[in-house]
Formats: sequence, structure tokens, C-alpha cells
Amino acid sequence: MRMYDIIEKKRNGQALTTEEINYFIDGYTNGNIPDYQASALLMAIYFQDMTDDERAQITKAMVESGDQIDLSEIDGIKVDKHSTGGVGDTTTLILAPLVASLGVPVAKMSGRGLGHTGGTIDKLEAVPGFHVEITNDEFIELVNKNKVAVVGQSGNLTPADKKLYGLRDVTATVNSIPLIASSIMSKKIASGADAIVLDVKTGAGAFMKELNDAKALAKAMVTIGNKVGRNTMAVISDMSQPLGNAIGNALEINEAIDTLQGKGPKDLTELCLTLGSQMVVLAEKAETLEEARAKLQENLHNGKALNQFKTFLSSQGGDATVVDQPHLLPQASFKVDLPAKKGGTVAEIIADDIGTAAMMLGAGRATKESEIDLAVGLVLHKKIGDKVEAGESLLTIHSNSENVDEVKEKLYASITISEEIIDAPTLIYDTVTK
Amino acid sequence: MRMYDIIEKKRNGQALTTEEINYFIDGYTNGNIPDYQASALLMAIYFQDMTDDERAQITKAMVESGDQIDLSEIDGIKVDKHSTGGVGDTTTLILAPLVASLGVPVAKMSGRGLGHTGGTIDKLEAVPGFHVEITNDEFIELVNKNKVAVVGQSGNLTPADKKLYGLRDVTATVNSIPLIASSIMSKKIASGADAIVLDVKTGAGAFMKELNDAKALAKAMVTIGNKVGRNTMAVISDMSQPLGNAIGNALEINEAIDTLQGKGPKDLTELCLTLGSQMVVLAEKAETLEEARAKLQENLHNGKALNQFKTFLSSQGGDATVVDQPHLLPQASFKVDLPAKKGGTVAEIIADDIGTAAMMLGAGRATKESEIDLAVGLVLHKKIGDKVEAGESLLTIHSNSENVDEVKEKLYASITISEEIIDAPTLIYDTVTK
Repeated sequence: MRMYDIIEKKRNGQALTTEEINYFIDGYTNGNIPDYQASALLMAIYFQDMTDDERAQITKAMVESGDQIDLSEIDGIKVDKHSTGGVGDTTTLILAPLVASLGVPVAKMSGRGLGHTGGTIDKLEAVPGFHVEITNDEFIELVNKNKVAVVGQSGNLTPADKKLYGLRDVTATVNSIPLIASSIMSKKIASGADAIVLDVKTGAGAFMKELNDAKALAKAMVTIGNKVGRNTMAVISDMSQPLGNAIGNALEINEAIDTLQGKGPKDLTELCLTLGSQMVVLAEKAETLEEARAKLQENLHNGKALNQFKTFLSSQGGDATVVDQPHLLPQASFKVDLPAKKGGTVAEIIADDIGTAAMMLGAGRATKESEIDLAVGLVLHKKIGDKVEAGESLLTIHSNSENVDEVKEKLYASITISEEIIDAPTLIYDTVTK
Repeated sequence: MRMYDIIEKKRNGQALTTEEINYFIDGYTNGNIPDYQASALLMAIYFQDMTDDERAQITKAMVESGDQIDLSEIDGIKVDKHSTGGVGDTTTLILAPLVASLGVPVAKMSGRGLGHTGGTIDKLEAVPGFHVEITNDEFIELVNKNKVAVVGQSGNLTPADKKLYGLRDVTATVNSIPLIASSIMSKKIASGADAIVLDVKTGAGAFMKELNDAKALAKAMVTIGNKVGRNTMAVISDMSQPLGNAIGNALEINEAIDTLQGKGPKDLTELCLTLGSQMVVLAEKAETLEEARAKLQENLHNGKALNQFKTFLSSQGGDATVVDQPHLLPQASFKVDLPAKKGGTVAEIIADDIGTAAMMLGAGRATKESEIDLAVGLVLHKKIGDKVEAGESLLTIHSNSENVDEVKEKLYASITISEEIIDAPTLIYDTVTK
């Protein structure tokens, strides 16, 4: 077999065989196939796409290129949730204890990562004492005991994907549905979940700006998951504006606490119930989505979800008293309101720019070496479709430096107030189950 | 400027600017742009093509990446001829002295190369004593004095093209009209000719199997040439069967001698008159193609073309007596006829396979290290459309080894005799002048 022939075949629009895909992934991972041949193939894939079988096969090959997490000692059906990423996405912090409160085992492997705010682990570390430095055995024991635990990424998961992603990133071949879908799914599958619920974001603040692209990506990932034997479904949700109100690490913990007792923002709560219902059904803890939703809603109001969160935090060293006394979470020194310059209806809140403003405050990492300020961020008081009067606060800036002029300027530029009547955007566009 | 943005722009189907193309060619030549980004761009060009301006610009950038031959000290308009390559193509050997006999300066830079037979220099070395080891000054002096000289390739011509071609060859990006056209034209332009006549071959034995592809390539090269200020035109000619009758180094010299005195094969003579007329008009040695053709034909019959060949050979150390006594050329020990197995009309002579048979005899190089046997090769007695009787010789094998069974088998497999009436193939399909 020769890499040249594989490139030429794909260039000509033909489907690659299992053997050809394995030859490529194995050869590229172990360094036998050079970068320049791999990038030519990636660009050919960009133009010629891959069939469902090819997509499943390249995912499998990437999974098999490294370690795979074995969660078989955890009782029950392990359901993982993955979001394609957005601004102010607090869902993981809420969903983990929420579905665990119904007995769904949540064995979450999470990361820090670059971006507008920290990753799930950074956010959780806003809780004093909380840590993810636990052994694999402790992790499994905790999930079996409490139904929920979070651990940092360990082991050599999907090295093929890491190497390929690095190459795609410098050769303009990131933006390809089969390559995005196989990259995400290979990581999820190697992480050991039995079933996967995907939250595919669409809109200005999402990677997939267009609904059609988001649908294609959702369908691609669901097909891959089911083809490799993992029960997979996707929800397509809005990311034209930030989700919920809080953007920032401690601020999102605070928002999660509110939401876990039924007092969270409407959109965030609704998305958690939608995703959570799917997780509960996939985990076979409810027969129907309606039944699952009712049970979840019950636990938001009877204290069980909140208690589950406390147990989870304290079992990993966290001070659970923050749940009842959120002022114990890191607090910013300055809280500055952003008054509306005119009255009307909020027409636009550009999620990406709001995220950038949060990063300017120190809520996220610009580079791997950046230190995150857990206290800072933004809390929105108005969302798209809300009426606002001139002078009324659009949001509060939580900052540790007194001068926030630049951030204010950025924020004003990213929020539009209109004199027309504007509807709140659709939150859930679609669900994809096969 | 970033290479990433250039790849992305081309991937999205946009035209690159002069600055972007220069950035890529300069950066790739000097090693600042890695192979993996270059190959991604090449594959994007394969799918998205290049505009006429981009094609001209990448050609110019490749010309400027290395040395350029200065022929300005040669009097008159220097016209170069280039063929895209085929089997038994003796045209250069004939055209050089033929158009020189009308005062057109022919300053030919030529090569050896791999293939079915040697390159033009190998063929000329079948003439005892002939050599191309002359200085640049001697070369220019010879052309001014005799109107024709041949020199080996020297200097660092189009290093960008050499490096890019090497990359294209291993990434399945050779077969792209803008990349083929700019590669060929950059070499021609760096070689210093004022005007260029292109012979673009089409058919089973050519690189461009399909007439439409040959036309597209011809048009691309003509447009590039004219855009960069070199008067350029192309003839599209047949390569479904070998051109002329001889395939082999000394055998083609012999055929050139015949043709230069008006006794050559009909197709070879006709193509030389067609290409030669264009060269003569571009060199402004005739007003019209008809006038040029009449003058060329005259010189084929009045001995002037043949005399020009003698002068050319002897001025570079060659024994010109071979022209009158061709038996002084290297002769093969064995001449074996290939009798037709049945009577009928010749329907097919697969040029590529005939070329391979010649290479099996030793007429061409399989690798750079191979030694060429100048004496061996094939002489066809029948071409497509010719009638043949059972047992009549289709061709003569000139071999230096007695056992030619394998070669015979190859030849039988590549020649088809039909009971139907078959026409000779069209020789000249088209001419492209702008």
C-alpha cells in the first residue's frame, strides 16, 4: 500500500477502504507518513468529503491509536455529554450533579483549555479545596459511590487526533465536517462512555455559525457514534448570544448553584432539562423524555440536585458550604454596571465579543501559560428580546482592576439596542437521533 | 502575511494576489514555508484552479527563483520549441537545423532525462565525437555563426519549480493544468527564448490522453507566455501511435537525416513543417505560414537543411560524414523482424507500450544510473491505417542481445490488426495562438 495512491484515490472522489484508512492513521501516528502527504490528503478530504463508513473507520482508527479509558467497573450505563463550545456554557456544572441525582453515573473526564473562560476543571477550582488529582481507582470508586466525579485528562488518548489536529490547524483543513466529527467523536469514544449526548451550538458565537452546518455536524457525529456501537444523539442549540447570564469561573459556579435549585436563567435551565432528559433516557433511568424531564424538574425543586452537587464537591476536597453561602466563592474587587445608552429592545449580544471582554478581564487563558483570575467576569441582566430603559444596567462587570474602560467599550460595541420589537432567539433548533 | 491565510483563501476559491504568490514561491524555495503547507496549497489549487493572472504570476515567480539565461547577445528573434513528450519524437533533431537553414537562430538548451529513449543530447551523441561540453560564450558564438547550437542544461534554473515538482510528485498534485502549465513555461522562459512554439501531444501515448485536456493545457501555456511578454503559440498533435518510424537514439538520427532531405516519414515531416512554419513566422523570417512552409520545403529538397545539419554536428565535434554514410552510426548486432500474425489493417499501436519495448532493449534510462545503448531500438514499417499481409514485417527490432522473445511478446500485445477499414489518425488537431 502506498500513501500516494490513497491521496490520489480520495482526490478523485473515491471512498477509502478500512485498510487504507488504518494505513494512513497508523503510518501518520508513528511517523512513517510525512506531514506533507497527510496535509495533501486532508485537503482532498476537505473537498471530496468522506462516506459514513469512512468517517466511522477513521474515528475507530484514531481511538485505537492510543489509550482507551476502561469504565467497565462503574455500574450502570455511563452517559457523557459534549458541547461544541460557546460562551457562558455552564451546562456541564449543572448536568453532572443533576442527572447523577437520578442515579445516572457521570464519570467526567474534563480539561482546562484555552478560551473565553477556563474549562470545567478551572471553574470547579473556584470552589476552595476542590481538586481533580485523584487516581483512576479513586475516580471509579467515587462514581460508584456518589454517581458523579470529575478527573483531569490522563493517559495518551487519541494521539493520531492530536497530531492531525495540529496539522489541520496550520493547513486550513480544520473546517471539514468529516474531520471535525471524527476528531470530537474519537476523543469521546476513547474516554469510555457507553452513550453520548452532543450539544451542537449554532449562531454567531459558535464554531458552526450556520444552522445547516451545525445540523450536518450533528448528523455526522450521531452517525459515527451509532456506527461504532455507542448510543449517540445530538441537540442543536442557540449560541447567537451567551447561554445563561454568567461568564466567568466563580460566577458560573454561582449560576450553577442557582440553577440546581430551580432559580437559574430560563435558557440555561431549559437547555439543561433538554440535554438531561436525553441523558436520563439513554441511561435507562426513565422510559420517556417526558418522564425524565419531570423527574429532573422535581429534583431541581426538592433539593436533591443541590445536595448531589454538595456531595460531589466535598468528595473531591471542595468546601461545600459555598453552595449555601456563595459569597465564600472568589469575589472580584470591583463591580461596575454597564448602563444602556438608550432605551429599546436588546437586538444583539455578540457572544464571541462578550467572551473576549471576559477574557480581557482575566477570566480565560489567551495562551497556555496565562493564569486565570477565577473571580472576574460578566453577569448579563438583559438578553436578546428584553426591554431596557436608558440608564438601566445591561450587565455587571466583575473586575479586579479599577479601570475597565476598554472592556466597557468592547461591550458597548457588542450589544445592540433597537427600537423595533425583537423576539428572543429560538433556543433548541433540532434534535438528531440517527 | 501568513501562509495559512493564503491556503485558506485558495481553498475558498479566491484568487491570490501577486504579493501572496511571491510570498509562497520565495518562502517555499528558501525553506521558510514547510512542505506540509505547500502541499495543502497545491491540493487546494488542484480543486480551485488559478486565474490567468495567477498562472502568469506563479510562472514569473518561479522564473525569478533562480538563474535566467541571457541570450541577448544572439542576433535575431530566438524561438524555442517544446514538446510535452511522446514516443519516437524526433522533431527537435530535424527542426533545429531546418529552421536555422532559414536564418532563425536556434539556441537549444537540452537534457538527457529518463524515458523510452534518451533525450536530445543522448540522441546527438550517437554521432561519433559530438559533444555539448561548450562554454556559454562558445554557445553564443556558435549560434551567431551557424544559427544553431545545443548545450546541456547548466545553472540553477527555476529551483522553485524543481522543489515544487518533487512535492507534487509524492502528493498526487501533478495533474493540475495551472501547475503543469506554469512548470513547463517557467523553464522555457528562464531559458531565455523570445518566442515559444509548443507541441502539445494528445492520445494514448501522451501525458494528456484526452483532446480536451490537451487543449486546456495548450491554452493555459499560450496565455502564460503571452502574459509574461513571450510570443507563444501551441500546436496540438497526435500521440496515439509513435511519431515517425524510428524509436531509439542512433535510429532517430538516421530518421532525421532522411527527413532533412525530404525522404522522411509522412507524419514526422508534416509535423516538422507545421511547427517549423510557426517558428519561422515568429522569428519574422516569413510573413505568412504558407510562405514559411514553402521555404522550409524548398530547403528539405535543395540540400540546405541537410548541410545545416552537417555544419551543426561538426561545429560541436561530431563526425558529419555520418550524414552521407549513416552506416557509420552505432549499429545493433541483431535485426529481427516482427511478422504480422494475420492480414488486415493496423488498428492500434499503443505508443506507451512500444516505448517500453524500446526501453527493454536498452534505448532509454529506467533510472538516472542506467546506461543507454545508442544503437538499439525499433523501426516501424506499418502505422495505423496501413494494410498488412500475414507474415509481412510490422517492424524491425534492433537489438544487441540475441534473445528478444520478451520484447516481441510486448510488441505483439501492443499492435492490433483489424479486418475492418481503419483511417490513419488525425495528426494535427488544433493550433492555439491566444
